[in-house]
Amino acid sequence: MGRLTNDLAELTARTQFEGPVLELDFPGLEIGCAEYDEGPTGCTVFSFLPDGAACATDVRGGSPGTIGGYEWVHALCFAGGSLYGLEAATGVAAEIFARRGYATGWLEIPLVSGAIVFDWGPRDNAVYPDKELGRAALRAAKAGRFPLGQRGAGRSATVGKTFAYDEGEPGGQGAALRRIGETRIAVFTVVNAFGAVVDRDGSVVRGHLDATTGERRALVAGVEERLATGAPVRPPPGNTTLTLVVTNQRLDSRELRTLGRQVHASMARAIHPFHALVDGDVLYTVSTNEVEATQLDSISLGIVASELAWDAVLSAVT
Amino acid sequence: MGRLTNDLAELTARTQFEGPVLELDFPGLEIGCAEYDEGPTGCTVFSFLPDGAACATDVRGGSPGTIGGYEWVHALCFAGGSLYGLEAATGVAAEIFARRGYATGWLEIPLVSGAIVFDWGPRDNAVYPDKELGRAALRAAKAGRFPLGQRGAGRSATVGKTFAYDEGEPGGQGAALRRIGETRIAVFTVVNAFGAVVDRDGSVVRGHLDATTGERRALVAGVEERLATGAPVRPPPGNTTLTLVVTNQRLDSRELRTLGRQVHASMARAIHPFHALVDGDVLYTVSTNEVEATQLDSISLGIVASELAWDAVLSAVT
Amino acid sequence: MGRLTNDLAELTARTQFEGPVLELDFPGLEIGCAEYDEGPTGCTVFSFLPDGAACATDVRGGSPGTIGGYEWVHALCFAGGSLYGLEAATGVAAEIFARRGYATGWLEIPLVSGAIVFDWGPRDNAVYPDKELGRAALRAAKAGRFPLGQRGAGRSATVGKTFAYDEGEPGGQGAALRRIGETRIAVFTVVNAFGAVVDRDGSVVRGHLDATTGERRALVAGVEERLATGAPVRPPPGNTTLTLVVTNQRLDSRELRTLGRQVHASMARAIHPFHALVDGDVLYTVSTNEVEATQLDSISLGIVASELAWDAVLSAVT
Amino acid sequence: MGRLTNDLAELTARTQFEGPVLELDFPGLEIGCAEYDEGPTGCTVFSFLPDGAACATDVRGGSPGTIGGYEWVHALCFAGGSLYGLEAATGVAAEIFARRGYATGWLEIPLVSGAIVFDWGPRDNAVYPDKELGRAALRAAKAGRFPLGQRGAGRSATVGKTFAYDEGEPGGQGAALRRIGETRIAVFTVVNAFGAVVDRDGSVVRGHLDATTGERRALVAGVEERLATGAPVRPPPGNTTLTLVVTNQRLDSRELRTLGRQVHASMARAIHPFHALVDGDVLYTVSTNEVEATQLDSISLGIVASELAWDAVLSAVT
Repeated sequence: MGRLTNDLAELTARTQFEGPVLELDFPGLEIGCAEYDEGPTGCTVFSFLPDGAACATDVRGGSPGTIGGYEWVHALCFAGGSLYGLEAATGVAAEIFARRGYATGWLEIPLVSGAIVFDWGPRDNAVYPDKELGRAALRAAKAGRFPLGQRGAGRSATVGKTFAYDEGEPGGQGAALRRIGETRIAVFTVVNAFGAVVDRDGSVVRGHLDATTGERRALVAGVEERLATGAPVRPPPGNTTLTLVVTNQRLDSRELRTLGRQVHASMARAIHPFHALVDGDVLYTVSTNEVEATQLDSISLGIVASELAWDAVLSAVT
Repeated sequence: MGRLTNDLAELTARTQFEGPVLELDFPGLEIGCAEYDEGPTGCTVFSFLPDGAACATDVRGGSPGTIGGYEWVHALCFAGGSLYGLEAATGVAAEIFARRGYATGWLEIPLVSGAIVFDWGPRDNAVYPDKELGRAALRAAKAGRFPLGQRGAGRSATVGKTFAYDEGEPGGQGAALRRIGETRIAVFTVVNAFGAVVDRDGSVVRGHLDATTGERRALVAGVEERLATGAPVRPPPGNTTLTLVVTNQRLDSRELRTLGRQVHASMARAIHPFHALVDGDVLYTVSTNEVEATQLDSISLGIVASELAWDAVLSAVT
Repeated sequence: MGRLTNDLAELTARTQFEGPVLELDFPGLEIGCAEYDEGPTGCTVFSFLPDGAACATDVRGGSPGTIGGYEWVHALCFAGGSLYGLEAATGVAAEIFARRGYATGWLEIPLVSGAIVFDWGPRDNAVYPDKELGRAALRAAKAGRFPLGQRGAGRSATVGKTFAYDEGEPGGQGAALRRIGETRIAVFTVVNAFGAVVDRDGSVVRGHLDATTGERRALVAGVEERLATGAPVRPPPGNTTLTLVVTNQRLDSRELRTLGRQVHASMARAIHPFHALVDGDVLYTVSTNEVEATQLDSISLGIVASELAWDAVLSAVT
Repeated sequence: MGRLTNDLAELTARTQFEGPVLELDFPGLEIGCAEYDEGPTGCTVFSFLPDGAACATDVRGGSPGTIGGYEWVHALCFAGGSLYGLEAATGVAAEIFARRGYATGWLEIPLVSGAIVFDWGPRDNAVYPDKELGRAALRAAKAGRFPLGQRGAGRSATVGKTFAYDEGEPGGQGAALRRIGETRIAVFTVVNAFGAVVDRDGSVVRGHLDATTGERRALVAGVEERLATGAPVRPPPGNTTLTLVVTNQRLDSRELRTLGRQVHASMARAIHPFHALVDGDVLYTVSTNEVEATQLDSISLGIVASELAWDAVLSAVT
């Protein structure tokens, strides 16, 4: 007999959730989550329908799993299930086609980019987000709400596995947003890093949990301890942080790309280590280009977004 | 009522074909094709199971559609169906899991890279290669045979649409291989370019077909004619040539990448124009690293492979 | 005693030349060449002063030597002298500063991108284009004339060294341009490839010269001959083709980049093999963005430019 | 009359310095600094002669200025002088040629990569590191010592200009190294960021200096204050952090590249904001490949190096 997986089970998508939610007011953005409790695993879809939005993709981890990567997107799909979970993005595309109606617009191919996290660590099965789950997530997408914590693509996420897989603690998905004048900027992130989550005091607040002491190891102290005893430090494979930075402020393609780089690097403050060989970190920067820049240039927008990114990471594990 | 598409039809994968075939002896490579006659459309899978092989990806067209892009692959999946067809690659991954057995190896995630061609030009429906078709293609994969012409991912391919969509003619998939000492080198290609196919005499042998004269337009003469009359030259979107260069000769990652570039550029001799904004041209270079270089360095291998690539393109439309 | 080189000699820049010239009418573009007869070697500068122009850089050879690589350039500098020749580009920047006047504009840093060819094959010294030569080339720059053949960066260029270094023949620099309505498009190239130059009949017209027979070897026949006898085919290192495609038609950054890719690949028809591990091929695509597209979209412009590129290569060796 | 610049002055390279130094024991690495007091400005050269070392280049700022970028380097050159300072790297190459002797090895072209910082902010002249200064730096290179603070390429560096150019404070160059078993790892950095330097308590320790209060502004508080009053936040152009991570532990090209990414992102903890549109941040990762990995894999090495990078940044401004 095999591990439970999609081939061997009749799975039912769940798209209604209890628990903490970030309320948000971001015109042009709808968000949907869908999960299989049998995993548990899930996916999170960001829809910019009907027209789509400009997008830059920043792949920085050493082990990414992606589909698409377009400079314009109608939707983004983050999913669990390791590389199998890329299938969820194909469901989003299929559902966009269905929503548009099969008769019209069949030549307007939807642009759906996506990336995945490896979330098989804390579970003993191989259930993954598939086409049906991606479809369900898009059908469930609506404006105004983003479930926080172990929901959607972050359903079985873990963090803080630098020293040992079983020192990891639950990760999840987080978000934060802000409005400054006419400019809106939001950051959404699915945190499944091998690194730990660090707060603004520099303390590890999730991950590196020493079961015997109940304390969370500081990164450097933990490494030093290993080095002193000659013990190896060899992080386990299969980790990733996926992030979306989205604004309604007009940015050209170079600004969009650079804004993404600035924010992505900043997240090394909140998650550490970050962008390692065993991570598949990807960040998408999207602009709906609805309002002109006034007070904030793209760099200042990046400063604000970098703080939001830290907030978003913390909200994923609180 | 809508266009016929996967949501609206019960589709049956076909994996047995009549017609021309290239016989090939390439240890470590299995090939499978699967088609939906309802499109018609299909996909072509190259399997390097069980262990996989080193891979470099060269994306050069302005409008690519890809999944994966790993430096090691267990399988590659070329498909029709425009971006919807990326789903076929997810079926290949699912089927590898099934083949390995659900009980074992569930943590060994298969690496399946893939790319698609837009083949909706010559047909009035939206049937696309989906997960089931990808699975079927892998199940049908075997050593020794590659169907030529309008088969697999090339089932509804067209070429030579520079001047008008209806001047296009059937494209398809082609292949050529060679053995030099212990070194084997093969090129497989799915030709759906907006450019025309050019033979070694410089003549257009497929595409640019003027229905009124029955002649194929030479590229330059055709452009000149337009320019002289002030008529615009605006190629239609949705074209792509997908190519695999595979060898068993050991190459390091830099050699693999450069070999791919050399061969990819060389194909501008056989397909012209090539690598345009409306093309999604992608070339994968794979080495099974089974034999050491003896007579041919990577550049000379590229010279041989470039000739094979031309042969492969011609075999796709003959 | 050492090889003659810049440290050991008092060199004098020459900027006046006899010989064939392409007359050209391209507002906003000035061209200057400077040479050291002691090499001989030289450099070729393309100036877009005072305001500069949008630029995309396409590096495809396996062994490039570049400086800068900006998305906006005031000047481009192609030079001989292998990597030492990158110094010439620094002279162009210094001379732009001098031209602007040291008092004003000292905070407007000039953007000078450059690339080099290895031209030490046919000569027994190590004289290279240095800062002074770059300065001299910019000072000599003027509109309307481009010296053809073994001039500027192409002064000691060779081509067609696939089978043996001493089968190479002189390369050089070439150009071609065209005006279609308000659109101007020109291609300039310095041909120092290890590949041979091929005309539109598919014949090798420069390189692969068999001294014993006086015949030029066809590439494939030459390779086959080696393979048949078991002789290795191992091209010598140190080759490169440098190219500039320049238009006055408005193109956005994606169009500019893709136009460059289309033309660069097309040059594999005129130079073969192309883009190999031992080549450092780089192509710059520049637009002065002076006129709006009317008749030609960016792809059609690429078709025209690809023919010009072939003409330019042939003009370099005629 | 003009700004003082290299064309207008007889400059003398200084290569002997007072002040703080990091003593280091790193076989195979020699370091030399040279300065023009007239700027003041300077350059810092890292030599891996005679054989060179494997190198990966990570360009992340939006406004980089680079030369070379090879996968193998004989030397690296960091310089002030904005883009004019790239000339210093050409001097390093010329001096390597001189050191090897003009008679021998003239076909072994030295691989010198380099990058620059814009250090014209705090000075009213345009003196820049030129070929002679690069030569002087290599001639002065020796093992065992690295000058700290406002030396070499960091001679006129400034940091912390997010809110206003005149709130900037001196930057400089810093370093830290460590030995763990047979593995050596060192980080060298030239800090000229528009971001401020942040210590491990999260406090700004250099930059953002409010002259009226004598306090350094916290980044977020400073931004908030501007936002509250409607004042724009628009950082000045011309900033950069240049970094070298060097180890003697064997790493393949993928590990080398990923190690660099991990450490580069980590520096957003020590310098913030980082990698912005107006920064030209570049990090080189070099391995002399002398010892095999034992205790530390490449990720763990990255953890250690990330702490060293923070130490190095702090040492630049202490």
